[in-house]
This record gives sequence, C-alpha cells and structure tokens, in this order.
Amino acid sequence: MTPSHKLSELGLSLPTPPNPVAAYLPAVVHEGTVIVSGQIPMVEGNLQFKGSVPSEVSEAEAVNAARQCALNALAVVDSVLPGGLDSVEQILRLGVFVQSEAGFHGQPAIANGASELMQDLFGEAGRHARAAVGVIALPLGATVEIELMARFSPTGR
Amino acid sequence: MTPSHKLSELGLSLPTPPNPVAAYLPAVVHEGTVIVSGQIPMVEGNLQFKGSVPSEVSEAEAVNAARQCALNALAVVDSVLPGGLDSVEQILRLGVFVQSEAGFHGQPAIANGASELMQDLFGEAGRHARAAVGVIALPLGATVEIELMARFSPTGR
Amino acid sequence: MTPSHKLSELGLSLPTPPNPVAAYLPAVVHEGTVIVSGQIPMVEGNLQFKGSVPSEVSEAEAVNAARQCALNALAVVDSVLPGGLDSVEQILRLGVFVQSEAGFHGQPAIANGASELMQDLFGEAGRHARAAVGVIALPLGATVEIELMARFSPTGR
Repeated sequence: MTPSHKLSELGLSLPTPPNPVAAYLPAVVHEGTVIVSGQIPMVEGNLQFKGSVPSEVSEAEAVNAARQCALNALAVVDSVLPGGLDSVEQILRLGVFVQSEAGFHGQPAIANGASELMQDLFGEAGRHARAAVGVIALPLGATVEIELMARFSPTGR
Repeated sequence: MTPSHKLSELGLSLPTPPNPVAAYLPAVVHEGTVIVSGQIPMVEGNLQFKGSVPSEVSEAEAVNAARQCALNALAVVDSVLPGGLDSVEQILRLGVFVQSEAGFHGQPAIANGASELMQDLFGEAGRHARAAVGVIALPLGATVEIELMARFSPTGR
Repeated sequence: MTPSHKLSELGLSLPTPPNPVAAYLPAVVHEGTVIVSGQIPMVEGNLQFKGSVPSEVSEAEAVNAARQCALNALAVVDSVLPGGLDSVEQILRLGVFVQSEAGFHGQPAIANGASELMQDLFGEAGRHARAAVGVIALPLGATVEIELMARFSPTGR
C-alpha cells in the first residue's frame, strides 16, 4: 500500500501546502533529497494551535499540533516532487521545536505526533533521525514548528 | 551579473570572515555542499547586536542583525570555496535563531533580513528552505544566529 | 592511531547507545553520511545532567554534559555503521542545544565539551561546523542535547 493510500485509510488528506510566511521557499530539492522549511500548524490559512505548552496548550493538543505540522510538511513534499508523496524513499530527519514554558520537558511525546504519522504512512521508510527541543517563541505564536528532510526516487517509486 | 557584483551594487562588501568563538570550523565542505557554522552579527570582531527582541533590541534592528549574520555567512562561504562566492549554485537552507522574549512572534520578518539578501544577491538561486525560531539565549548575547547550507560548483560558475 | 584507540588512551569508552525516548531512530544512514538524533546526557539509562545553566547546573558541569552527549552520539555512530567508529571520515556538523536561563550566553564554551572531544579523537577529521544555541527546555529536563552528522567510508577506513 502506498503512503497516499495509507493516508486515505487513516481518514486523512493532505492540506493545501501552506505558503511560506516570508521570503523563502516551502522546500528545496537537492541531489535526491527534499529539504522542507519549518512548518507550523496552519489549516487552510489559519493557525490552529497557538501558545506555549503546558499552560496555554495542553500536551495532548500539542501532539495534534505536531501531527498537523507533519501533514503540512508532507503536503509540501507532495507538491514539489515530480513523483509526489509516493516517491519518498526515506524520511531522513525531523527537526521539532515546541513552544515550551520553563520546566516543561515532554517534547518527545509531542514530537511523536509527527514521528508516528511518518511511521504509519511510510512504515520502515518513515523511521527517521530527530532532534526535539523546547523554545521560548515561534513564528505567529505557533505551538510547534517542524522541518523535514527526506530522500526520494527521481523516477517515482 | 554575479553575486559579487550585486553585492557591490548594493553598496555592500563581505566582512572579514569571523573566527569561530570556539573549537570548531567556520564551515565544512562536503560533496558539493558547504555547511556554515552558526554566525552571529560580528563586525570586525565586535558584536553589533546584543540582547533580546523586542525589549532590548527592536524588530527593525533585529532585521539588520539577521542581515549581518547572513553577510558573515557569505564571507565564510567566499573564504572556504576555491571558486569563492560566485561559485555558489544554490542556497539550500538557513537555520535562523532569534533571541526572543516570551510572547514575541515576529521571527519570520527578522529572518527575512537574511533571506531577502540571499534573493537580492543570487536571484532564484538564493531562494532557500528555512527554519526560524525564537530562543531564550544565544552565544555572547547575540540577537540573532544564522547557519547556512549551500550547493556550489566545484569548477566555479 | 584510530579514534577507538584514542578513546582508550583518554580513558574513555563508548557507552551502550541510548535508545530513543520515542518513536524515531538513533540514526539514519544516507549516501555516505550518518545523521544522529539529538542525544541527551544519559549514562546507562539515567539522565546525568538535568536542569538549566547556570543556576541549576554550573557551566563547568554543563561542559561535561556536552561531552557525554557527544560520547552517546559516537556510540550510536559506532553501532549503526558497518565499519564502526573508525570508519568515520569527517565529523560534518554538531547541533548543540543548551538548556539556558535568560542572560546566560556561555553556550560556546559548553559546546566545546563536545567539539574538543571530536578533535581529540579524530584530529583534523574531527573539526566540524556547529550551531550552538540556548533553549528554554529540553527533553526530560536534560541540560544539553546534541545532534551530529558525519561522513563515513563505506569500506571502513
């Protein structure tokens, strides 16, 4: 089953890839890899998760925020690769930034909202290296920002 | 027009590439890419922008700080590549860290100080993937730190 | 002398590579590079350095925390590469996150705990690009988190 089919099976669909909020690209393609810019949990142009964890946004909500960031990153991947989402051979790395208050240390569980989606969609090929940290502030007040690097097949899968 | 010419046309010049403030290299070259260490807004050995945004440094000043970080990164690129700045084929990624207070979410506009310089100098080849986040503290108290990855032509452009 | 020999000479040994604290891999291998996930200062399953610098953990202790993160990253490298640690050709990049309080700006000295170990073990091949920043919070309350990218020889060194 392809990642696109898995996505449908999970009742999910790729959003319209969000436009960068500034002077840069959603992603660049380099030597068989795609480097996706930091994605925040936008849905149809609206920021869905805003504020820091845990007092403004709960850990459970932040997991959903991370999942939405991941979906947005995959929407970008799908839009920039000639072979689309299903030409991804391996998710290589996620960089996960969680807007956190001092003393909150549950970033790994939140980042799992993204990591588990990758595994659900791509299986072994979705398992990746990751760095997850807590930061004081993110663009537009987003709860989570995620950047992604993946390898793809130039000829489709 | 080459990026070097563009730089002159904009009335800018590359600074002396700053020395790393510790035990690492200004950049490493790997398989046709150059990975530049995090640059802070040093000018001739002095840190020009120090403090967090917005109470210690205004958003407008921080844009200039980001631009200076970008110039320093390009100075490093110019110094480590045999073909210099003009052998850059594509700016691939900027990692932008803005020393931010809680509640400040204007990191994208600040990072644009760097991103727009890249576009001004390199045109389409200057458009890149980016992650911009707000952090509580940066080396020496710098307002902004920027790391860069670019692809270059081994034979010059 | 190989990096493994150097390690013994320094009276050090590689720890058991820590398991990821969540749904991701310790490292991925891609086109002759290994990308290691963010490592925290775990020793045999216990987090050795917890809290922010400087009030909860001193700068000197944080240097040791960074060194432990680096050892853990090398343990992962050793475990995932067919040729082990000694097949590393070049350390390419360290990403260093220090759990910092506002106003603390000694991240470079702390990151040197990792950078200098690389240089001690690998010599010139251990010198790398680096970004070091201060963050408000890290997984499990770790004082430092470090991710690493290195190039290796597929045939061993």
